[in-house]
Amino acid sequence: MRHTISVVVENEFGVLSRVVGLFSGRGFNIESLCVAETEEPGISRITIVTAGNKQIVEQILKQLNKLIPVLKVSDLTGYDTVDRELVLVKVKADNDTKPEVMRLTDIFRAKIVDAAPRSYTIEVTGEEKKINAFLQLLRPFGIKEIARTGKIAIVRGT
Amino acid sequence: MRHTISVVVENEFGVLSRVVGLFSGRGFNIESLCVAETEEPGISRITIVTAGNKQIVEQILKQLNKLIPVLKVSDLTGYDTVDRELVLVKVKADNDTKPEVMRLTDIFRAKIVDAAPRSYTIEVTGEEKKINAFLQLLRPFGIKEIARTGKIAIVRGT
Repeated sequence: MRHTISVVVENEFGVLSRVVGLFSGRGFNIESLCVAETEEPGISRITIVTAGNKQIVEQILKQLNKLIPVLKVSDLTGYDTVDRELVLVKVKADNDTKPEVMRLTDIFRAKIVDAAPRSYTIEVTGEEKKINAFLQLLRPFGIKEIARTGKIAIVRGT
Repeated sequence: MRHTISVVVENEFGVLSRVVGLFSGRGFNIESLCVAETEEPGISRITIVTAGNKQIVEQILKQLNKLIPVLKVSDLTGYDTVDRELVLVKVKADNDTKPEVMRLTDIFRAKIVDAAPRSYTIEVTGEEKKINAFLQLLRPFGIKEIARTGKIAIVRGT
C-alpha cells in the first residue's frame, strides 16, 4: 500500500540524510520526496511517498519521531487531503502538431511556459491521476524531458 | 552562491540516500530537493538547490558522476531555465478577510482548492520570487500550514 508521510524538521545539518537513511535502511523505496522550508525560518517539511506494509511503516514513523531534529511526523494516508504535484514537460511540437498540443494544454488547464521552433515546455499541476493522464496523451508527440516535483499534501478543512 | 543541480538516476535501492549523503558529507546544506520518476520507467530525476562555493560544487558534481546509478548530472546555474515551484498554503480567513484573500489569490493567478469556515487552502505555482511575494502578503492573515515542493527546472528552447 502507498503511504504519504509528512515530516516537519528543524533544518539542521544532515537531517535529510538521516530521514532518507531510515527508509533505505529498512529496505523501503521512496517513490517521490519533496523538501523545502515552511513559513517558519529554519523549519522544513519533507513529504515522502512510499509503498510498503503497514507494520513497517509504523516502525519507520516511530523511529522518525525519535530523531532529535524531527518536530512532527504524520502519515496522511486515509486522511482527506488536498494532493498536488507540479510537472514541467518539454514535448516535440511542429507546425502539424502544435494545435493539438495546445488543445490538450487547454483541456487540462495547463500552461505553455516556453516555446521553441520544435518544442513546447508545458507546466501542469494537479493530482497524480490527472498528471499521468496528461502525460499519456502527450507521449505520442514525443516527450523530450520531464521534471516532476512529486506529491505534496495538506489535510482539508479545519 | 546558489546552485540548481539536476541528477538523473536509475531508481535503484538507496540511490537517493547516497546522493543526499554526498552533500551532507561535504558539509553542504540542501535548501530544497525534489525527486520523482521521469517519463522512462525506473528512471528518476532529482533537483537539488544548494548554496556554496563553485569549487566544492564542482567536486560534488564529479563525485555524483562516479556513482553507478547516476546517468546524468547537470548544474543548471547560469543556464536560461524555466523554474517553477508549487505551494499549498492554508491561511486563516473569516468573513471580514475572505474578500481580500480572494483578491490576492486572483492577482497571483493562484487557486483556492479547499474552503473551511475559517480558512482557505490555496494552490500557487511560479518562480521563487513570486511565491515568496504571495506568502509575504498572506502572512498578516495568519498562515496555518504550508507544503512547498521546492524548485524544478528545465532548460529553455531546443
